[in-house]
Amino acid sequence: MSEENVREENVTVIGLGQMGAALAAAFLDAGHPTTVWNRTAAKAGPLVARGAAHAAGVAEAVAASELVVVCVLDHAAVHELLAPHAEALRGRVVVNLTTGSPEQARESARWAEGHGIGYLDGGVMTTPPGIGDSANMILYAGGPELLARHRATLAVLGDPVDLGADAGLASLYDAGLLGLMWSVFGGWLHATALTGADGVAARDFTAVATRWLKTVSWFMTGYAEQIDAGEYPGADATIDVQVAAIGHLLHAGEERGVDGRLPRLHLELMRSAVEAGHGGDSYARIIEAFRK
Amino acid sequence: MSEENVREENVTVIGLGQMGAALAAAFLDAGHPTTVWNRTAAKAGPLVARGAAHAAGVAEAVAASELVVVCVLDHAAVHELLAPHAEALRGRVVVNLTTGSPEQARESARWAEGHGIGYLDGGVMTTPPGIGDSANMILYAGGPELLARHRATLAVLGDPVDLGADAGLASLYDAGLLGLMWSVFGGWLHATALTGADGVAARDFTAVATRWLKTVSWFMTGYAEQIDAGEYPGADATIDVQVAAIGHLLHAGEERGVDGRLPRLHLELMRSAVEAGHGGDSYARIIEAFRK
Ligand SMILES: NC(=O)c1ccc[n+]([C@@H]2O[C@H](COP(=O)([O-])OP(=O)(O)OC[C@H]3O[C@@H](n4cnc5c(N)ncnc54)[C@H](OP(=O)(O)O)[C@@H]3O)[C@@H](O)[C@H]2O)c1
Ligand SMILES: NC(=O)c1ccc[n+]([C@@H]2O[C@H](COP(=O)([O-])OP(=O)(O)OC[C@H]3O[C@@H](n4cnc5c(N)ncnc54)[C@H](OP(=O)(O)O)[C@@H]3O)[C@@H](O)[C@H]2O)c1
Repeated sequence: MSEENVREENVTVIGLGQMGAALAAAFLDAGHPTTVWNRTAAKAGPLVARGAAHAAGVAEAVAASELVVVCVLDHAAVHELLAPHAEALRGRVVVNLTTGSPEQARESARWAEGHGIGYLDGGVMTTPPGIGDSANMILYAGGPELLARHRATLAVLGDPVDLGADAGLASLYDAGLLGLMWSVFGGWLHATALTGADGVAARDFTAVATRWLKTVSWFMTGYAEQIDAGEYPGADATIDVQVAAIGHLLHAGEERGVDGRLPRLHLELMRSAVEAGHGGDSYARIIEAFRK
Repeated sequence: MSEENVREENVTVIGLGQMGAALAAAFLDAGHPTTVWNRTAAKAGPLVARGAAHAAGVAEAVAASELVVVCVLDHAAVHELLAPHAEALRGRVVVNLTTGSPEQARESARWAEGHGIGYLDGGVMTTPPGIGDSANMILYAGGPELLARHRATLAVLGDPVDLGADAGLASLYDAGLLGLMWSVFGGWLHATALTGADGVAARDFTAVATRWLKTVSWFMTGYAEQIDAGEYPGADATIDVQVAAIGHLLHAGEERGVDGRLPRLHLELMRSAVEAGHGGDSYARIIEAFRK
């Protein structure tokens, strides 16, 4: 609580697994009166020791705050927990930080609207240790006005990114961004195995790799404009040039016994663009291989 | 040239394709007396107009500077150009920024050593428009002392990163980093196609994706320590959790007609770790799927 004795907004957190517990801890650290509930009650212990109020049931948890954050395993669990309390939730705001599909998010938004409940669907773009760091993003969709109203409170968890009125977009972005993460991990692990075979420590290669991601981000920003324009001029580097370069990667991998499935898939994608007559275009053209 | 009339080091650039021309232009912009040569002489024109000296042949180009930067198509072209001038190169420093394999780089280094020629093998980690920006890296291997001696001059091209005495490492890092780039592009294009299907502009998704890469970089830095230690505790997020999450990506992609080869490969890699009994470990464990 601040020195001027401003009372921070009440918050309820339902679900105290790895992520829910981190969310509740961040609210407590920021001085929000925080009420918690979890199916397995024992998980509330450490948070109660830090000042949280322990609700005896979902009804009591919902009654304690206008802002009700839910972070449980999946959509089915959210529905099971909240559906019996629709009337008690009327006029309150559910912030659903449970991972699900865009279709599930849109369904939850319709359910909430039908009961006069405010609804924000969210995507937590970090792991529990990253909660509370404003460098990390929490995506929100389905209620720009609700987000604006509760932004200061939600900012305690990470930087709130507003994706607009379609409640499905936080889940869709979340899925796409996780796919990007697995791709980054795959390319990085492949390269770490490759350089590791010649005695390079993962730590040393990774310091260069994370710097390189900033340059790659700059390429992506330029290519995104090409995708929106539907034109892919290869003024900086063409797909033909990449096809030539990937030979070194495949060969170096074979020499060192590194699994080649990932670079071979990249080559397949590049070849489909070359065969369609687009070898002189930029890599952004390869979005067509994904769209069909 | 500075106001104090300090004369910058002479530099020769052999090869004036897209990349070589950008390198020569950066040296000229920084005030280095720059001599250029290209097989197709006409490409020297714009550089001569900016103040470059145009050598009549490779011999004249080599004679003009202690530092001789070579950037041509491939290793064979480098060898073809320089081998006849080994004696003239004695005591000078060849900086080879041509893309090649680690084995080719090590071969060039041995050749140079045999003729008393200094040799630095390099990897340019950007496209021509990124040359001259110190945010971008130029990797150097094979001559830490030579790099230290010429660092100020080479820094004109981009931030010089010293990879140590093994001349093969710039090429090996280069191949690995390009592989990482193609993986990033793949994951990003897949996700851009996915979100695009629901009406999201590439520009909007990409702004979030490039921020996300900073968080992913932070994961990588932690996982690199795990790889060096050979232990993969899944304290933040386990492979089991990722297997659950990738279902949403595959399903959302199928619903939207997005090609699923890339996420299916990630799932295959994850499953191999789960089947080996490592589902409770972090994603870093998947390096073992690449090593075999
Ligand atoms: N961990 C991460 O890095 C991360 C990152 C982004 C998003 N997320 C998402 O956050 C959500 C929670 O993840 P987590 O890491 O906290 O998982 P977790 O540690 O496994 O916790 C799961 C939580 O869900 C509760 N739960 C499961 N089924 C339930 C049901 N039928 N009724 C009531 N409660 C139920 C569990 O209660 P019990 O304690 O009683 O079992 C527990 O509180 C998931 O959707 C996950 O995808 C996690
Ligand atoms: N462009 C990039 O984004 C980028 C990024 C990193 C690294 N690189 C590397 O930089 C190198 C050059 O690429 P670039 O983009 O400048 O390619 P480029 O525009 O195609 O230029 C190729 C250059 O090589 C010369 N050359 C080819 N064969 C030759 C031979 N047998 N003898 C003499 N000269 C020969 C060409 O001379 P002519 O003009 O007479 O044909 C031209 O100067 C490549 O190894 C590439 O992988 C490029």
